[in-house]
Amino acid sequence: MQEQLATEDIVANVKVYEVGPRDGLQNEATFISTEDKLKLIHALLDANLPLVEMTSFVHPRWIPALADADQIAHAFVGSEQSQRVSALVPNARGLDRALNAECKEIAVFMSASETHNQRNINKTKAETYLAFEPVFKACHEKNIKVRAYVSVVWGCPYEGQVSPNASIEVCQRLLDMGAYEVSLGDTIGIGNPQQTKKILDAMSKHISLDKLAMHMHDTWGRALANCLAGLEMGIRTFDASIGGLGGCPYAPGASGNLATEDLVSMLHEMGYHTGISWPKLIKAGRIAQDLIGRPLPSRALQAALASQKNLDC
Amino acid sequence: MQEQLATEDIVANVKVYEVGPRDGLQNEATFISTEDKLKLIHALLDANLPLVEMTSFVHPRWIPALADADQIAHAFVGSEQSQRVSALVPNARGLDRALNAECKEIAVFMSASETHNQRNINKTKAETYLAFEPVFKACHEKNIKVRAYVSVVWGCPYEGQVSPNASIEVCQRLLDMGAYEVSLGDTIGIGNPQQTKKILDAMSKHISLDKLAMHMHDTWGRALANCLAGLEMGIRTFDASIGGLGGCPYAPGASGNLATEDLVSMLHEMGYHTGISWPKLIKAGRIAQDLIGRPLPSRALQAALASQKNLDC
Repeated sequence: MQEQLATEDIVANVKVYEVGPRDGLQNEATFISTEDKLKLIHALLDANLPLVEMTSFVHPRWIPALADADQIAHAFVGSEQSQRVSALVPNARGLDRALNAECKEIAVFMSASETHNQRNINKTKAETYLAFEPVFKACHEKNIKVRAYVSVVWGCPYEGQVSPNASIEVCQRLLDMGAYEVSLGDTIGIGNPQQTKKILDAMSKHISLDKLAMHMHDTWGRALANCLAGLEMGIRTFDASIGGLGGCPYAPGASGNLATEDLVSMLHEMGYHTGISWPKLIKAGRIAQDLIGRPLPSRALQAALASQKNLDC
Repeated sequence: MQEQLATEDIVANVKVYEVGPRDGLQNEATFISTEDKLKLIHALLDANLPLVEMTSFVHPRWIPALADADQIAHAFVGSEQSQRVSALVPNARGLDRALNAECKEIAVFMSASETHNQRNINKTKAETYLAFEPVFKACHEKNIKVRAYVSVVWGCPYEGQVSPNASIEVCQRLLDMGAYEVSLGDTIGIGNPQQTKKILDAMSKHISLDKLAMHMHDTWGRALANCLAGLEMGIRTFDASIGGLGGCPYAPGASGNLATEDLVSMLHEMGYHTGISWPKLIKAGRIAQDLIGRPLPSRALQAALASQKNLDC
């Protein structure tokens, strides 16, 4: 259905950062076995997602769904794919586990608002920077890439509005400390495209947009519209979760992750290049859905599976 | 969460045209009683949707779900709300039924592509214009407003690409015949925002955009992103279906209607004025969901119901 694109429409590559095995599964009630998680991660790598966040080294007390983080990470030690998997590191103990599993890339996180930061990681923002210092130092010494998430950029459940200046300050600190990229999170999915443009416009005066990614939640159905606004402003990296994992629309409080298939489908139709194989992405989506055992929220996954079904008839 | 808007952000009104009771219910497997349909229509009117497409005068053999079209339409005869309800009229017999029910507004439909038009209404486009002539004439004489739908503007399941020129020609003919507005349909939900801008740019050279509406399907998750592109181009009327009625994401072949709540939520957050009451819209969405008996696909409805539930706890 894609119209022939004129030369001026052939646009730069867009990077899709897959968070399903971590951000998705940590919000799913179903426990997925280590073997099945690895099957999903390999399907995502096989679909050519450039980077897959495979797990989180959080204490299993907090996220039992990811209690097998060490086994997951160790499965990639010495593997060709080790550069393409990442793990979330919440603290010094998490860093030790990541180092032990020879991770080549980790992600750290904090919040743009003081209250969300305190409620979520039990530290002030100032204390968080201090706690990050040895993490960045160790990673720098061992040549481990560090990605940083900044939560509640579009709005905070405790403080309401979050000024772009607060987010800018956090992003600059994290980039200065050595993060190669900062992913801006719309944690409660409240963002709208006009706001997205305002935030990015303010940010672009201080930070090069190629250092920023967007991590939008589809809680209110606006994730893709927000990504479109981000694309128009020049953002070229977007986080997404296979099938919309972790975003069951019927579970109160679910995070409502943007589905990778919905994002990639739109990007490809618009003529962007992601390097991702569409048929293999749908295969990964089908695997995710089979593991969870119910239809996942991704519209594009359901449409693709329905058309395959129609073709099979 | 909405930031204070600067004066330049206070934008013109946007009209949301509610198609749930017709386009939604005709695609739902569950038969809803006449009484319940009227309850839903009244809830939508009460939420201040400016116009509600209440039913279709199609032969009940084709759409048994709307077999009670006459009863529905007759319920509004002489009512204060009669100017705010509309009915789809597929042919001369349908027009007779609409006249009999003293409808103040009707809608007609045809396709931008020749093949889809023939498959869908068993006439060539030229024959369709001829068949429309007496319909427009009768409506003109009786001061009945006529809205027109043009299907497959973003792509045809039989012909693939549809040139904007083909759509422009159909729109111009329908406006010349007396339609007050033409609603452009992305029947198979394949449109992307870049394509939307190209189509509307081409159209705007021949047709005033205030004569056009967009009717986007969410089959691939892109309805809202396409509406955003339309908004940016100057479109100010959008069709939507309460709860996403008719768009069960897990039913192969379902039309995937854009949910009214998702659209209105985004518009309000962006500072647009629709005149619609958000709490009453959610009430209507809850009624629709209760009638269908399963969670409807609207993200914003589910998020709103979940936050109500959390507040109740």
